[in-house]
Amino acid sequence: MLSDDALDLLLRQLPPPPSPQGGYVPAVSHAGLVVTAGMTPRVDGVIRHRGRVGVDLTVEEAREAAAIAAGNALSAALAALVPGQYLDRVLRLTVYVNATPGFTEHTAVADGASARLCALLGDRGAAARSAIGVTSLPGDACVELELACALAIAGSG
Amino acid sequence: MLSDDALDLLLRQLPPPPSPQGGYVPAVSHAGLVVTAGMTPRVDGVIRHRGRVGVDLTVEEAREAAAIAAGNALSAALAALVPGQYLDRVLRLTVYVNATPGFTEHTAVADGASARLCALLGDRGAAARSAIGVTSLPGDACVELELACALAIAGSG
Amino acid sequence: MLSDDALDLLLRQLPPPPSPQGGYVPAVSHAGLVVTAGMTPRVDGVIRHRGRVGVDLTVEEAREAAAIAAGNALSAALAALVPGQYLDRVLRLTVYVNATPGFTEHTAVADGASARLCALLGDRGAAARSAIGVTSLPGDACVELELACALAIAGSG
Repeated sequence: MLSDDALDLLLRQLPPPPSPQGGYVPAVSHAGLVVTAGMTPRVDGVIRHRGRVGVDLTVEEAREAAAIAAGNALSAALAALVPGQYLDRVLRLTVYVNATPGFTEHTAVADGASARLCALLGDRGAAARSAIGVTSLPGDACVELELACALAIAGSG
Repeated sequence: MLSDDALDLLLRQLPPPPSPQGGYVPAVSHAGLVVTAGMTPRVDGVIRHRGRVGVDLTVEEAREAAAIAAGNALSAALAALVPGQYLDRVLRLTVYVNATPGFTEHTAVADGASARLCALLGDRGAAARSAIGVTSLPGDACVELELACALAIAGSG
Repeated sequence: MLSDDALDLLLRQLPPPPSPQGGYVPAVSHAGLVVTAGMTPRVDGVIRHRGRVGVDLTVEEAREAAAIAAGNALSAALAALVPGQYLDRVLRLTVYVNATPGFTEHTAVADGASARLCALLGDRGAAARSAIGVTSLPGDACVELELACALAIAGSG
């Protein structure tokens, strides 16, 4: 479980959670879990990398986009906690890569998100992860990802 | 938590849960959660809108399809509850849109599902949502979606 | 809940869990749930069926691939359990099929995974399932799938 000091430090490294673009909420917590909406690499409201990986942008740019989206998702997860709840670890990370048929480097793109989460959370950021190539994403984002995280209660261990 | 009266009213607005098309079940409940299978816009067993959004049908038709699929998913979730369990809220909604490369209006399509869920459940229908564009869907459906919902126990809250 | 004997028998039918290809873990258990990473049809570290279903391989080959991936995922789920935890059932199965636009037989492919899970787990292997067609998958796998399973505690029923 993160201490209050560790959480404060973490929050100072994260952007504010992005506002929803439709009829949904950025994250919901329930009974020891918090799940986030799909997050794109928005910075100050603007998607940073658009298009299909391998055609419109490089794997390296997509990795950077995945790291930005991971920061947005973690920020949304933390904002959904109520007093006394703490993030224990990331359980699952799903990374959707806007990619062409025949693209095979989804793992390299998704590693951008995992590296960011582990930089922020240590081993608690290493999740069960799926990475898949999709046809298109909202706003022509090159990547979208979602988190499911486990919570802990203060004093419970 | 929905009262018995509210639940009765809700059920009268929903179709019966669709029967599975393969070796799976429409929904499973466990320990305060119910998760549904991916649901397509089937009405009386027939998929209402087929094909790729933006080519074979309009965004408006896909929104309507998403609303139908959302009703099917909610119906399946409710049918999986046992006596004394109540739906508390939708936690996560994942919307897969059958879309071409370059399609960007996934949010508008997914809003059709969210609007339906919020019409039926109020604020409890606003979930953490992901919307992504996929290559193809079972039966050539234009949209498929799945729900994860939180449950409450009668008398607990 | 599986008895120790049933679990032993099950484990003898499964391969060792595949090692991660990037910065993630094969499975995580938390509070009565275990979730797996996306698993491809790797056998001894090599993906068995590659390419797009309907173009590079048949539906039957993809079914076989889905069965292999399901075994890998179940193996990873079981390896994440701690002493005293038992697999109760599969809650959700998500099957991503590497498919062309217009492909419609996702259900037949995903049934390969469900049949394997039910052969191993009986009714406990029948999950809420989503099957979708995607543009591309890591390593050009023809299928990727992930599990969420419910756990039971020894002695709790």
